[in-house]
Amino acid sequence: MGRVTERRRVIRIRDGAVSARPDTLVAEEPMEIRLNGKPLAVTMRTPGDDFALAAGFLVSEGVLGSADELANIVYCAGATEDGRNTYNVVDVRLAPGVPVPDVTLERNVYTTSSCGLCGKASLDAVRTTARHPLSDGPAGPMRLEPALLASLPDRLREAQRVFDRTGGLHAAALFSADGELLDAREDVGRHNAVDKIVGRALQQGLLPLSGTVLMVSGRASFELAQKAVMAGIPVLAAVSAPSSLAVDLAAETGLTLVGFLRGASMNVYAGEQRIVLRERAAND
Amino acid sequence: MGRVTERRRVIRIRDGAVSARPDTLVAEEPMEIRLNGKPLAVTMRTPGDDFALAAGFLVSEGVLGSADELANIVYCAGATEDGRNTYNVVDVRLAPGVPVPDVTLERNVYTTSSCGLCGKASLDAVRTTARHPLSDGPAGPMRLEPALLASLPDRLREAQRVFDRTGGLHAAALFSADGELLDAREDVGRHNAVDKIVGRALQQGLLPLSGTVLMVSGRASFELAQKAVMAGIPVLAAVSAPSSLAVDLAAETGLTLVGFLRGASMNVYAGEQRIVLRERAAND
Repeated sequence: MGRVTERRRVIRIRDGAVSARPDTLVAEEPMEIRLNGKPLAVTMRTPGDDFALAAGFLVSEGVLGSADELANIVYCAGATEDGRNTYNVVDVRLAPGVPVPDVTLERNVYTTSSCGLCGKASLDAVRTTARHPLSDGPAGPMRLEPALLASLPDRLREAQRVFDRTGGLHAAALFSADGELLDAREDVGRHNAVDKIVGRALQQGLLPLSGTVLMVSGRASFELAQKAVMAGIPVLAAVSAPSSLAVDLAAETGLTLVGFLRGASMNVYAGEQRIVLRERAAND
Repeated sequence: MGRVTERRRVIRIRDGAVSARPDTLVAEEPMEIRLNGKPLAVTMRTPGDDFALAAGFLVSEGVLGSADELANIVYCAGATEDGRNTYNVVDVRLAPGVPVPDVTLERNVYTTSSCGLCGKASLDAVRTTARHPLSDGPAGPMRLEPALLASLPDRLREAQRVFDRTGGLHAAALFSADGELLDAREDVGRHNAVDKIVGRALQQGLLPLSGTVLMVSGRASFELAQKAVMAGIPVLAAVSAPSSLAVDLAAETGLTLVGFLRGASMNVYAGEQRIVLRERAAND
């Protein structure tokens, strides 16, 4: 996928010295997501994994819950003036019998028609549209060692192939409960990286993602916590701070939320029963 | 505005040692923007400067171009079950005679009904909806010294009051051509911080923002470049990398785009005529 990066001329200033040279930038292009032929949303994204992005977006919105609800995903072809396919419009077709929701959705499920919009309404919207329980999986209750969590940021950075060249990408990675890297994606949009992971899992029949840990570069917003919950991911870990509403959503749904994961330090904002804390370990 | 931060209990793990304490988090809540009573968009934002956020959003969308097109902005009142105002729904009312656009917009002006969606279409959409030329202002051509640009990131951080406490906010600041800080805003969403600055400027009758520099924490995406162009801001500077499409938009509209602004180093991706480069200075 050569479209993941693009070259542009740049003028570099280093302590007053000026030079011109080509630079590698992260590619950004619009993508329109259609549902059974009807336009639903436009997102700016880094090209690549487009079908996974579209599928994951629909998981986050509560439209798709399992692979058998998906008929297929195609690029809309040949509608430019010169007949080319831009590969920027994808149509997601639901399996026969799967209800097509009334897609007046904005970017998220928390849209409301009442004037009483509030944080609580956003939490309720996620809870009522969630298709999967947050499960620790068949191996039994997750008991994550802090040392294992502390190793994840470095492993996320190792998995980022494009970031080092462009500095312009957000990243997300999915790990098993024993720290195995299951998938890693990058995108110019932080939500897109998570949607790509979730969408690929849906395509492979792996939803819900019980017993897994989602690690994200940057902050833990409400939307990222929402995406974890909608995909059935029980643990979300972020390098930076969570928002108040992300913490509230985690507390309400049983999501384990870890923030400021740096070196051997971290903050646990909710769902601490999945993490081995020293006091408990001393009592074992 | 006590709602800018909220307190939550957190479990801290530092090199294996566990403690529990209250922590200060950045507040995040949904806000619905209505246009003449009709729902237009929902954005997750940090409460505060809500009217400015709504106005700035509509500048970015090409709906508002000057203060006289705006009648007023109000909170929708009393529609919760218990009659409270959540202060999360704002209605923007246009002045009499100002055409209400056909608001089928998604989050951005680059929506299209054709299958030919591409980066070029996004650039065209901004160019055709832009209400203001990018002007250097009445003081004549801008000639920014690299040393002045290099001072902006520190001054942006100084202006960030909440960030130090929560670590969870994006920031944007507006500077004059001689480096005077004109405004600074923070928000859990990076686009919102810019919308708040632009909306406040519109309310004060200051659009277009000729002769100013917009400085943002983080990356320079297409959307941020779009917001600068729509507000008539001729210079956008970012701490991190720009995307390919942000650079293309800058080149096409005449926007000066500076990235990787760190210490005495920076990259200039477009519009270098507004920056004093050493070779030229030596010839003066």
